Amino acid sequence: MKAEIIAVGSELLLGQISNTNARFISSQLAELGIDVYYQTVVGDNANRLVDSIKIAEDRADLIIFTGGLGPTKDDLTKETIARHLGEKLVMDAHALNYIEKFFKRMNRVMTENNKKQAFVIEGCTVLENKQGMAPGMLLTNEKHSYILLPGPPKEMEPMFQLEAKPLLAKLLHKETVIISQVIRFYGIGEAELETKVQDLLENQTNPTLAPLAADGEVTLRLTAKTESETEAWIKIDELQTEILNRVGKFVYGFNNDSLASKLHEILIDNNLTISAAESMTAGLFQSELAAIPGMSEALVGGMITYTEDIKVQQLGVRQEVISEFGVVSKECAEEMAFRIKEKFGTNIGVGITGVAGPDQHGGQPTGTVWIGIAFGQLAPISYKLSLSGMRNTNRLRAVKFTIHYLIRLLREQGYVKI
Amino acid sequence: MKAEIIAVGSELLLGQISNTNARFISSQLAELGIDVYYQTVVGDNANRLVDSIKIAEDRADLIIFTGGLGPTKDDLTKETIARHLGEKLVMDAHALNYIEKFFKRMNRVMTENNKKQAFVIEGCTVLENKQGMAPGMLLTNEKHSYILLPGPPKEMEPMFQLEAKPLLAKLLHKETVIISQVIRFYGIGEAELETKVQDLLENQTNPTLAPLAADGEVTLRLTAKTESETEAWIKIDELQTEILNRVGKFVYGFNNDSLASKLHEILIDNNLTISAAESMTAGLFQSELAAIPGMSEALVGGMITYTEDIKVQQLGVRQEVISEFGVVSKECAEEMAFRIKEKFGTNIGVGITGVAGPDQHGGQPTGTVWIGIAFGQLAPISYKLSLSGMRNTNRLRAVKFTIHYLIRLLREQGYVKI
Repeated sequence: MKAEIIAVGSELLLGQISNTNARFISSQLAELGIDVYYQTVVGDNANRLVDSIKIAEDRADLIIFTGGLGPTKDDLTKETIARHLGEKLVMDAHALNYIEKFFKRMNRVMTENNKKQAFVIEGCTVLENKQGMAPGMLLTNEKHSYILLPGPPKEMEPMFQLEAKPLLAKLLHKETVIISQVIRFYGIGEAELETKVQDLLENQTNPTLAPLAADGEVTLRLTAKTESETEAWIKIDELQTEILNRVGKFVYGFNNDSLASKLHEILIDNNLTISAAESMTAGLFQSELAAIPGMSEALVGGMITYTEDIKVQQLGVRQEVISEFGVVSKECAEEMAFRIKEKFGTNIGVGITGVAGPDQHGGQPTGTVWIGIAFGQLAPISYKLSLSGMRNTNRLRAVKFTIHYLIRLLREQGYVKI
Repeated sequence: MKAEIIAVGSELLLGQISNTNARFISSQLAELGIDVYYQTVVGDNANRLVDSIKIAEDRADLIIFTGGLGPTKDDLTKETIARHLGEKLVMDAHALNYIEKFFKRMNRVMTENNKKQAFVIEGCTVLENKQGMAPGMLLTNEKHSYILLPGPPKEMEPMFQLEAKPLLAKLLHKETVIISQVIRFYGIGEAELETKVQDLLENQTNPTLAPLAADGEVTLRLTAKTESETEAWIKIDELQTEILNRVGKFVYGFNNDSLASKLHEILIDNNLTISAAESMTAGLFQSELAAIPGMSEALVGGMITYTEDIKVQQLGVRQEVISEFGVVSKECAEEMAFRIKEKFGTNIGVGITGVAGPDQHGGQPTGTVWIGIAFGQLAPISYKLSLSGMRNTNRLRAVKFTIHYLIRLLREQGYVKI
């Protein structure tokens, strides 16, 4: 089964928002083993939408639409598809009832244009919208299947997962098993990694091996297609073992692991607590950790010490350290890490100080970062980065490197099982 | 001039990354007054890429490619376009020299596959890559213009802005002036806003008026097409005045303003300093502020008080307040705001406490947030939110509402000029 995703919305073509829906739907289809050959974006224009549908019908079996199901005049996806397929729109009583209840619950007045959302294409399977008002639809004819999903991600994502995905799984008559495994690296560049696995990349057949670099991280995706799940896993394990032998020290996790989720797992497994004193990252390190549910068991809190005064008066960094070495220095980062660990009574203390840019700071050029880590009774250690990005890329990279170094240190100290 | 954007990369079709490049290029083309009718994503496959080019040539004058210019075997954009157009690839000495220097500067060994990046399509204008190695290209024939850009955003974005955009501006023979103005709202829903400007939406001709909702914010885009810039601005001002009369109190800014940049502007203009004590947002509020260059003049720092102990022992929240009202309460939020203001000696103190989810906390359901603000000698005030999103949506919404309430308070207190 080949799929195409058509996102409908002039706001996408004006560059006001990114097409994150296509990414989400594509990753879900990849899990089902459905190949996506094209993603298309078209504006709120009936003629151009019809043209896109015709092109997609020529090259795909399954066409998934997102956007244009709302209450406004611009929203014309279902009307256009209905006309194209020669079907009519009918009121769905269940959806209307739900919309009315939604307004009551939100304590808001229901305007007339909201009723438009309760119409669906005749003969479709209605996909319930638990997070909003516009229902989705699945239509199937001899040649194609069409799925209509709303545009807002918080409505579209649960609708796809809870309603559309089980129906798609039924539509598929799986003959082969497809298993994918992603190996996640940090601290190694894409070209360097590729050079180390060059022969594996060149001779790949089954499993296939695909490198990807994004946001400073590199991944390798191993995909096996076989007749049984066991056979697929045996093939994946073989190749993975070979890769780990060569570049295992840069691996921080697998599949949906993120640097933060991996660190969280290690901290929880070992009953370790952490605090941080952040300067250039101004809370981003702790905020990234706190994005992981359950992080409050390990992350106690910390300080944001943006100015020199706050570093000295509130955190307790010695004035002479700053006077002698500057705020962006090995000594300051290590002292920040040590002070926050002592002050907040945690096992680990982190200090991050640097120059995010665009201006230089503390006598150091943009991109200079010092990361200090104080762990238990060990003497504080530190790492220097020389980053080349813009302000907020530098801030995010500093956070990712901090987590990477924490994971590496905890592994070296024997706190990580693999 | 009609444009189409073709992003090349199987990682996009697998859903591993979002097509943020299409958003960026679209927004840049919108500024130039170039209409984008379609965005397409195609994998690292020469045949399907050729099919996409043919479709695009039928419906666009300008085709912009992004991705597939790198050193690996998967990268086949320029090879495929050259073949399609009957042109050959030639070594660009300047690019090769740059690549060799790049490796020297990074102190890394240059592998042979990197040379591939120095080849360009014969007869093109080379677009310099200041952030990476693969140069871009502009080709023009009787019917079409083709622009080839690299995939990594940090290379693509400056190349577009510094190299491609000036060339595009030259290609355009502007007959009409197109001026756009975006009005930015917070604290009002899309449907409510549309109801208040319903007649303006229905009777729009020139300027056109387009609403858009994303990430809890709503915007209205006013676009005038006229023969002179003055005339366009007169038309925009008329409509804007009418809109501000009706819903001005929800407006926080215009065009590229963000909530954080607007707050930054107000703080700097009035020489005000700010600190924050964050619980559920765990540094995200301060990190969002610090994303704005120059924020260090206003943001002094703050604390992340994730646990009750830290709130009491480090920040100085009275134990009896927590015992009586809980950590997620009006009283706790106001006390957090007051304590951090006093402790860090700033004009404004902010306290954020709440339940991000998925689990309830402090006896309150997921989505409950209390935002406290202490400003100068005013008694601390607070705001309650009942959010319905997932953990990290709730955290981000809490931050945005905090900034919204700060801007509103400072406006009510006479600190904002408009």
